[in-house]
Amino acid sequence: MNDLELIQDTVKKILPLEDQWLVSSKKRLDSLTKPLGSLGRLEDLAQKICAIKRTIKPLLANKVIFTLAADHGITAEGVSAYPSEVTPQMVFNFLRGGAGINVLSRTVNAKVIVVDMGVAFDFPPSQGLVNLKIRMGTGNFAKGPAMSREEAATAIASGIGLVEKEMKNGIDIAGTGDMGIGNTTSSSAITSVMTGKTVSQVTGQGTGIEAKALSHKILVIEKALELHKPDSTDPIGVLSKVGGFEIGGLVGVILGAAKNKIPVMLDGFISGAAALIAVSLAPAVKDYLIAAHRSAEPGHDAMLKHLELSPLLDLKMRLGEGTGAALGMGLAEAACKILNEMATFEEASVSGKKEPATGRV
Amino acid sequence: MNDLELIQDTVKKILPLEDQWLVSSKKRLDSLTKPLGSLGRLEDLAQKICAIKRTIKPLLANKVIFTLAADHGITAEGVSAYPSEVTPQMVFNFLRGGAGINVLSRTVNAKVIVVDMGVAFDFPPSQGLVNLKIRMGTGNFAKGPAMSREEAATAIASGIGLVEKEMKNGIDIAGTGDMGIGNTTSSSAITSVMTGKTVSQVTGQGTGIEAKALSHKILVIEKALELHKPDSTDPIGVLSKVGGFEIGGLVGVILGAAKNKIPVMLDGFISGAAALIAVSLAPAVKDYLIAAHRSAEPGHDAMLKHLELSPLLDLKMRLGEGTGAALGMGLAEAACKILNEMATFEEASVSGKKEPATGRV
Repeated sequence: MNDLELIQDTVKKILPLEDQWLVSSKKRLDSLTKPLGSLGRLEDLAQKICAIKRTIKPLLANKVIFTLAADHGITAEGVSAYPSEVTPQMVFNFLRGGAGINVLSRTVNAKVIVVDMGVAFDFPPSQGLVNLKIRMGTGNFAKGPAMSREEAATAIASGIGLVEKEMKNGIDIAGTGDMGIGNTTSSSAITSVMTGKTVSQVTGQGTGIEAKALSHKILVIEKALELHKPDSTDPIGVLSKVGGFEIGGLVGVILGAAKNKIPVMLDGFISGAAALIAVSLAPAVKDYLIAAHRSAEPGHDAMLKHLELSPLLDLKMRLGEGTGAALGMGLAEAACKILNEMATFEEASVSGKKEPATGRV
Repeated sequence: MNDLELIQDTVKKILPLEDQWLVSSKKRLDSLTKPLGSLGRLEDLAQKICAIKRTIKPLLANKVIFTLAADHGITAEGVSAYPSEVTPQMVFNFLRGGAGINVLSRTVNAKVIVVDMGVAFDFPPSQGLVNLKIRMGTGNFAKGPAMSREEAATAIASGIGLVEKEMKNGIDIAGTGDMGIGNTTSSSAITSVMTGKTVSQVTGQGTGIEAKALSHKILVIEKALELHKPDSTDPIGVLSKVGGFEIGGLVGVILGAAKNKIPVMLDGFISGAAALIAVSLAPAVKDYLIAAHRSAEPGHDAMLKHLELSPLLDLKMRLGEGTGAALGMGLAEAACKILNEMATFEEASVSGKKEPATGRV
């Protein structure tokens, strides 16, 4: 299969959820020793994971976060607070275990898979780094397309391949993560196209630019969208025109996970941009997505609304790398353990609710 | 020392935080390989824990949740959806490890200490159960005081003693938890008195009563407050008039933890009622409190506002037992690991932010 055929084949195999698992998992939750529904959104999360995994006793033994890195030609326009050299520097930091994603993954016992999707640096071969480099960073999309359609398809296919390969070790839940100086600019452009919001509504400070630089960033994106006129019904076209290699890779990770009935714990703004593209390619993907947190990036809300997702956490985080996904996985594991480990009213000989008719409801 | 003397001695030893630890922990956070402040509230949490523990590298090795149980005479008024026999039944469930708090504590590796503060059941001696029973449940506060002033002081002193005893095993963070059919009624009464809100503003469905029963619950509390006229400047008086033995015990746990410079991860509504009493006894306690989550009980917001706390999670949970505190501890541990395990810009040879003057901010 070539890249496009692999994408089409994967999309075809993504099945919508079946209501029966929502019903049977609700029944199990209601049998457990707690007031009905008293674990709130943790119960909703448990139900969703049951429906995705087609079981009422899901285990999240293998938690895997895919942290994909790439560089962005658009940084030449001065849109980021940090220089591009930070992308490879942070990749080395990931490999040594000193970055935020390493620390937070360890707290929830998740594995981090670090992937070079297109960093502008020639890494020496390293055991910890997966090399799927497409090119030394995207083109500057203020002047031309970020990548060719073929490269966009390759990025997505590479992400699918990442998941398929890791299936041999087992994946019970997949997290998305990113590293790439300049990638909030690309993600804002994608969000504007896919949600119909104006650029200024969905563009924020990224790693920390000031007000004046933010106006400049908005202008750069507006001009680029005028230049490329991306078509929201052609997601691969949008990705090629204003996307990034790591964003394309994450589109593939999301599609690959959904095809394999694996819940996807979405990190923040960059992961959300990938999800917008993935859902446009395969609407059924939406059922497999869990929003770990609400990013501090203002455009994230428009994404979440478009994806019909309500985030689990709202901690004003905006680091990326998959850090929010790691925290979300801790909650997902707690939700699953409830189903697996809590005693039922019957097992524990605990009395149920009083009859409402007694007035003592 | 008698009970009152122990309380007074503990209150005297609760020291306000010193700004220097907020400053030095902020400096450390800003040296780590991430955009400034990009871990949002996780960074605020890390700073607060540093200030409480007087260190910039806090470890949360020993996480302890104190789950205190007691019965409530007020249940005779038909204020709860479940019968009182559920209190001892759930205590047995805790001891067997099948309750929500057991499951969620295991996910964050916290120890649960189960305490009988006044359950209306004669438990056989059990290794897992701490017996601090004051009486077989409080009196019906619709008709008379829930307990005597002496019993209220004993409940608080017992909670202080619990913490002091556990200090031998080490406590790096203390969580509060509760079990007691009828205890949202008591907590709503306390909240109304301590915050000045009307009873209907701070009274909710507890374990799940319907609208009609909720009106009745509100009326019962309103009449009780007319009967007792509790004085908000006399917290032990409030506890004795409309409180509960587990609530008194939690007041002591909070005071004891603060005295020992241990952060307190507050669970939901019942823990919040205890915190209102504790803060009234010792205003400096406020600095030691972390609100794990926003409970689905409508009165919780008034508590949080009074305590000047912003909850970490908002998952519409209302189970109690310390379940929210367990999830909050997972976030607190993540926050501390950031400080301990992330590489600095210097260690990782990562470039810092560009000079704003270059225009590339």
